[in-house]
Amino acid sequence: MNAETAGLPCPALDEIAIGPVLHALADPVRLDIVRQLAGSEFEVPCGGFHVTVSKSTLTHHLRTLREAGVLLGRQHGTTRYNSLRRKDLDTLFPGLLDGILAAPR
Amino acid sequence: MNAETAGLPCPALDEIAIGPVLHALADPVRLDIVRQLAGSEFEVPCGGFHVTVSKSTLTHHLRTLREAGVLLGRQHGTTRYNSLRRKDLDTLFPGLLDGILAAPR
Repeated sequence: MNAETAGLPCPALDEIAIGPVLHALADPVRLDIVRQLAGSEFEVPCGGFHVTVSKSTLTHHLRTLREAGVLLGRQHGTTRYNSLRRKDLDTLFPGLLDGILAAPR
Repeated sequence: MNAETAGLPCPALDEIAIGPVLHALADPVRLDIVRQLAGSEFEVPCGGFHVTVSKSTLTHHLRTLREAGVLLGRQHGTTRYNSLRRKDLDTLFPGLLDGILAAPR
């Protein structure tokens, strides 16, 4: 039997506001997560991030990013896959993500 | 006698980091200050901002923005003038400021 896929809750395009997006991106771990997503051709499962925080802290950061509208999450069986809402962010805030990703680490 | 002008402490270009910049911009009052600076042809004195916060809170927000590298401040007599470090930010994080300023309020 195939596992079902379910999208995790996230704001619609017109619900994404710049304040929560900037707040979400201002944290160094979350910014690192966004960089890893931006550098990945595919969705990244929660276990696929290179981070030094605990699994529960990572989950918290991913939720913060998701609820701000920065990334999409989907549950497939026991795995959560994450992807950057690049097109949505580029539509709403053209240049923002590129400017942030251009920053030296 | 002319009043002396003194630049207030701020990071050099190569000391500006994306994390503090995003943190500074994530606050709604500070983002509003940045919008007002971006919309002004001239420097804005501290008393020239349209904000609903107290003078001391405004001072705190301006310092946060200045120390992050988002704006420059100069003291001239009893007046502090503020200006956006637009060129510096565009150099370091091309597109960031435009993307943020494009956001609906």
